[in-house]
Amino acid sequence: MPQSFTPTPEDRFTFGLWTVGWTGRDPFGDPTRAALEPAESVRRLADLGAYGVTFHDDDVVPFGASQADRDDRLRRFRRALEETGMKVPMATTNLFTHPVFKDGAFTANDRDVRRFALRKTLRNIDLAAELGASVYVAWGGREGTESGAAKDVRVALDRLKEAFDFLAGYVTERGYDLRFAIEPKPNEPRGDILLPTVGHALAFIERLERPQLFGVNPEVGHEQMAGLNITHSVAQALWAGKLFHIDLNGQSGIKYDQDLRFGAGDLRQAFWLVDLLEGAGYAGPRHFDFKPPRTEDYAGVWASAAGCMRNYLILRDRAAAFRGDPRVAEALRAARLDQLAVPTLAPGESLEALLAEPFDPRAAAERGMALEALDQLALDHLLGVRG
Amino acid sequence: MPQSFTPTPEDRFTFGLWTVGWTGRDPFGDPTRAALEPAESVRRLADLGAYGVTFHDDDVVPFGASQADRDDRLRRFRRALEETGMKVPMATTNLFTHPVFKDGAFTANDRDVRRFALRKTLRNIDLAAELGASVYVAWGGREGTESGAAKDVRVALDRLKEAFDFLAGYVTERGYDLRFAIEPKPNEPRGDILLPTVGHALAFIERLERPQLFGVNPEVGHEQMAGLNITHSVAQALWAGKLFHIDLNGQSGIKYDQDLRFGAGDLRQAFWLVDLLEGAGYAGPRHFDFKPPRTEDYAGVWASAAGCMRNYLILRDRAAAFRGDPRVAEALRAARLDQLAVPTLAPGESLEALLAEPFDPRAAAERGMALEALDQLALDHLLGVRG
Amino acid sequence: MPQSFTPTPEDRFTFGLWTVGWTGRDPFGDPTRAALEPAESVRRLADLGAYGVTFHDDDVVPFGASQADRDDRLRRFRRALEETGMKVPMATTNLFTHPVFKDGAFTANDRDVRRFALRKTLRNIDLAAELGASVYVAWGGREGTESGAAKDVRVALDRLKEAFDFLAGYVTERGYDLRFAIEPKPNEPRGDILLPTVGHALAFIERLERPQLFGVNPEVGHEQMAGLNITHSVAQALWAGKLFHIDLNGQSGIKYDQDLRFGAGDLRQAFWLVDLLEGAGYAGPRHFDFKPPRTEDYAGVWASAAGCMRNYLILRDRAAAFRGDPRVAEALRAARLDQLAVPTLAPGESLEALLAEPFDPRAAAERGMALEALDQLALDHLLGVRG
Amino acid sequence: MPQSFTPTPEDRFTFGLWTVGWTGRDPFGDPTRAALEPAESVRRLADLGAYGVTFHDDDVVPFGASQADRDDRLRRFRRALEETGMKVPMATTNLFTHPVFKDGAFTANDRDVRRFALRKTLRNIDLAAELGASVYVAWGGREGTESGAAKDVRVALDRLKEAFDFLAGYVTERGYDLRFAIEPKPNEPRGDILLPTVGHALAFIERLERPQLFGVNPEVGHEQMAGLNITHSVAQALWAGKLFHIDLNGQSGIKYDQDLRFGAGDLRQAFWLVDLLEGAGYAGPRHFDFKPPRTEDYAGVWASAAGCMRNYLILRDRAAAFRGDPRVAEALRAARLDQLAVPTLAPGESLEALLAEPFDPRAAAERGMALEALDQLALDHLLGVRG
Repeated sequence: MPQSFTPTPEDRFTFGLWTVGWTGRDPFGDPTRAALEPAESVRRLADLGAYGVTFHDDDVVPFGASQADRDDRLRRFRRALEETGMKVPMATTNLFTHPVFKDGAFTANDRDVRRFALRKTLRNIDLAAELGASVYVAWGGREGTESGAAKDVRVALDRLKEAFDFLAGYVTERGYDLRFAIEPKPNEPRGDILLPTVGHALAFIERLERPQLFGVNPEVGHEQMAGLNITHSVAQALWAGKLFHIDLNGQSGIKYDQDLRFGAGDLRQAFWLVDLLEGAGYAGPRHFDFKPPRTEDYAGVWASAAGCMRNYLILRDRAAAFRGDPRVAEALRAARLDQLAVPTLAPGESLEALLAEPFDPRAAAERGMALEALDQLALDHLLGVRG
Repeated sequence: MPQSFTPTPEDRFTFGLWTVGWTGRDPFGDPTRAALEPAESVRRLADLGAYGVTFHDDDVVPFGASQADRDDRLRRFRRALEETGMKVPMATTNLFTHPVFKDGAFTANDRDVRRFALRKTLRNIDLAAELGASVYVAWGGREGTESGAAKDVRVALDRLKEAFDFLAGYVTERGYDLRFAIEPKPNEPRGDILLPTVGHALAFIERLERPQLFGVNPEVGHEQMAGLNITHSVAQALWAGKLFHIDLNGQSGIKYDQDLRFGAGDLRQAFWLVDLLEGAGYAGPRHFDFKPPRTEDYAGVWASAAGCMRNYLILRDRAAAFRGDPRVAEALRAARLDQLAVPTLAPGESLEALLAEPFDPRAAAERGMALEALDQLALDHLLGVRG
Repeated sequence: MPQSFTPTPEDRFTFGLWTVGWTGRDPFGDPTRAALEPAESVRRLADLGAYGVTFHDDDVVPFGASQADRDDRLRRFRRALEETGMKVPMATTNLFTHPVFKDGAFTANDRDVRRFALRKTLRNIDLAAELGASVYVAWGGREGTESGAAKDVRVALDRLKEAFDFLAGYVTERGYDLRFAIEPKPNEPRGDILLPTVGHALAFIERLERPQLFGVNPEVGHEQMAGLNITHSVAQALWAGKLFHIDLNGQSGIKYDQDLRFGAGDLRQAFWLVDLLEGAGYAGPRHFDFKPPRTEDYAGVWASAAGCMRNYLILRDRAAAFRGDPRVAEALRAARLDQLAVPTLAPGESLEALLAEPFDPRAAAERGMALEALDQLALDHLLGVRG
Repeated sequence: MPQSFTPTPEDRFTFGLWTVGWTGRDPFGDPTRAALEPAESVRRLADLGAYGVTFHDDDVVPFGASQADRDDRLRRFRRALEETGMKVPMATTNLFTHPVFKDGAFTANDRDVRRFALRKTLRNIDLAAELGASVYVAWGGREGTESGAAKDVRVALDRLKEAFDFLAGYVTERGYDLRFAIEPKPNEPRGDILLPTVGHALAFIERLERPQLFGVNPEVGHEQMAGLNITHSVAQALWAGKLFHIDLNGQSGIKYDQDLRFGAGDLRQAFWLVDLLEGAGYAGPRHFDFKPPRTEDYAGVWASAAGCMRNYLILRDRAAAFRGDPRVAEALRAARLDQLAVPTLAPGESLEALLAEPFDPRAAAERGMALEALDQLALDHLLGVRG
């Protein structure tokens, strides 16, 4: 029986308003698409089977809008949510588009800019809480430098900690059920961005006043822009109990941020990432943060959004088949994954016992790991070649 | 008065025995140089003005040597140290050359290999402590994968934690004055290595039983192999109180691990790194982990080693001139680095006060950051163009 | 009916002896496998369904072997070929392993080394011709530098041209039916290698005395080590009539040369490359130049070699299905690939006619290219999701 | 006597109008600077000591401007040129900003777009010729793809050839003294761009109808975005007689296109590139194609532009000192650069003579190349450490 790979809200797929709403302006080109009403995006994504949307403050209410305009826009947005049943599990602040943030937001050299960034964030946190979001993402895309003396990085990290401690205090005081997810990126739009990888963000969190309120929001393409294995980084985040959210998309290697639809780019990593998320019981939304190529009109935009979800479902199906295949179970044993799960030291084992153990390195070295056969089985499953 | 840039032990330069002792075997070629006696390396490096050497167990005593051979080799090594006054501030374990480690050491799928890796490390920790080392480096070069199912990364991190917790317990129990420095690397010799960046290592440390005993050993080229800014990563390590050691060398961008002499590769990053280390009062050795190109005979090897130290001294001189230049002080103010040092919130400031503050984003956005003039001053100083 | 994806000699799969024969020595580790007899490789690969093998001179006869030893080894190699029917469509020279080539071969600064490199090549060209090879590959892995003054690149290109002109003259004079295929690589084992990409090699060929005797041998991973699209580079080589040979393998992005089995690494690029080779009617062997990971014993080696062929066959099948699908034909028209095939100017069209043509850029800009729908169809076919 | 490093028109420095005129719009941010009048740029650059400016059609006359507007703007531009004596040695077409070019210009799938691109180019070629330009640059930034079936690359190269053949025919027919310089780039704004490197462009040129009218315009950062050595690529272009123009700027490794000022980014490559251009007697303008960071106001813009020229002059001075130093001459001999300049084969040498020559590979392999000492001398000169 052929599978349809048609998403439903139970699949918990979410999209940023800025994804399908991207008009195609890039560093060398003007927009190729007209702007899209947030309510329209909500309705179209609901029709495609999504579970919800996410937003930057400026996605819904333009920077500097009057209160009346703001109210009106929020009213229309809420109505679309209500009519469709779409959720808003995450929100975030745009601290990068307006020229005032050209040197950063929470780490801008100018103190008044840093204070403005805090105010802008507070205001949207209130809205996020009101709309029922449980995760607030922080991407510090402008927190960085192009030249060596432009920022004292240790001092900048002090400022970044100050900002997050303050925001966490605010959320705590208000009693919001909201946690923060820091989103790392190595570069672009700055030459080097602070907290460039999942690792750097995880480490930073441990120096905050309320580390329990902070996790990470890894983005597939961001980690791949540093040539890193996204699945490994997500696994370390899970291991640390810090995978609060995830941004799924595609990237073809180390270059500018491509934001391809999920499944495009490094397909094998996409497979292993889905395998990890599903195997680890990750319960959060599967959030797509991509940009439909500017070659596309809106028919192409919706095809691209549908493709993100379809590809996740296909890969989920393939990962399940892989994990359920008895040949795979055997291959995993042949590769001694079962031994990896056994602690290296026996409970209560003495140092003497360890030191006295005989071992023949030469003989041990001759044992093949049988990893190529295992990987070929995985590739077969990914490609849908069974038997 | 021309400067000589001649190193002395007070400069605290150290070299791995495996650096000048590298015989030039690479993935496509056989050795181009005969092996070097450790004692000879100690003497030559002392003559060049170094402060000390560092070593892997197998650098001094070949894998599998008899006890008599071991004693004899250690005796000769110690004698060279005594005669020259050279120190051994750091030691480490070779857990990557022998084929038994082909799938890893502390995270090998085979439990007996993991146990052997622990024994090998314990033995060299004893020697390190005896020789007066205060830092024990751990580079897990084989802890990684080339294929997606080959390792359950979360389980592997459990094993890695188990190993480090065990080793830290051992060191504590023995009363050794020894701390561990984890050395990250993104890839090579494995397709993807666990703890690929300084950030990932810093984050991992926080989940260990005795995090206070663990810091990082960033290597210039390793961080640059991920396209990251080494100075930023070292700054974050310093900020976290975790810069226990450092490996200085050169790398020309994202490619195989080049291990060029310090100063070769990305010269501007080398300048900023020296500026940071000196400015932050980093007190540890300036350790070179490089490979004299295999085009060189031993005259070239010593020229290359001397170059590492010379370049550090030149850059230290240039960084001092940069920081001492009144024009630079003025340029830093023009770029508002002084404002970055001021907390964003006033002591005890109320939320209301923050929220009520007037701000004109448009006007603020028009202020130039004056970073290009500042960076050109830095470049002038690096190039020795004064006035 | 399930497909078997079992190769036969008609599929024209060939392997370098150095691939399955790689013993696992890497920059940080000793060999993990015992050496393999060339005859054994020939027999095992024949059993797996390969068409032939290729070799470096030193793969069959060790560097510096006596004439008697050489004769004996060649006799055994020939016998295995005869017994299995395996062909030798390509041969090449090892100008990189011996330390004498540490500064290059045809562009070594030392003239006597350059002359030795020519002699070594001539000798193996004779053998290649005798064994029926029609392509002679030239990979100049050591022709490069790590530092800026080490080589005058323009002069080095003069020497490279001199060598190739000489070799082409020799082949012509001898009447050998042999053409040369230059294999580019950006770096490793040298910091920067001359003729780093397919483009640079194609351009260089045009300045040779007998350009018709020279084409390229693109290697998947080599082009990807420069972040380039291998399919685009192979397409340009085909367009120039210069695809004389191809090296198929896998690479996971910009890093050290991984030489993964074909299909591992960038799977989507592998698909498009097979689609191109099959669609363009490329008639040469499908040659695998990979390294079975050093984690593997020989069971893993043969599994890896079999995987290369299996993956090619799966991808060939999927590409054929893609090209034969009526929905794809429609999607290609929707994306106006048919218009790309029509010359931009009509035959004999006047400049005036072109200039006078009305055109509405705004309206034209609004046409979507429908490329996302097309790409999703391709991904469906790659993944074996039909309907 | 301290040097001033102050440029004059004799230094032949030129700037694109789009460089100092860049308003700071990037993929994540709005402009940070107001637009600049071309005439103002001309005057300010003249004041700074530049020799001339270059332009895209749309830099001087906005896309779609009326004839009257066009005339007016050109009049003001010409007047500024006349008043300052600034030259226009190069011009080019903007075939990337307008959304109509979203799928390419000369290789757009839509034939009418291709024809429009030709008309747009023809019109600006006329203007270029009228303003005295001798080089017409062609950067095909949109000629590429993000997905595998979006373009048949071989057919696209046919279209690209058709366009260039047509344009060369036009220039020839009109009798313009204008040659074309193709500018390669690996990616951004497209996922993969056709003719991604200097090599690919050089190769392509050889298949054109009038190859003598075509050369390349290498851009420092573009080649470095592929991890390639820009000096090597420029050297190959010079070797092929094809360096028609050059774009100088800075780039910090493989990432998005940074367009830093010349000297920023990879400083050592900048040094070697200046050394090559000056040593090879390159006679064209030293053209800067950079973007003053968007952190800067116009004071920063002019500081950045001045820095480009200053850095070139400093590096030119340092390269001259390096080449003039007797110790360097000796080091070059020690590295046998003199031998590289001697043909490998003697004039009229017989094959027999070559084959009969005795050679001891082991002894030859032991000769050190002395490249580290040479490179340290170069680094000393770059850093201004003399003696």
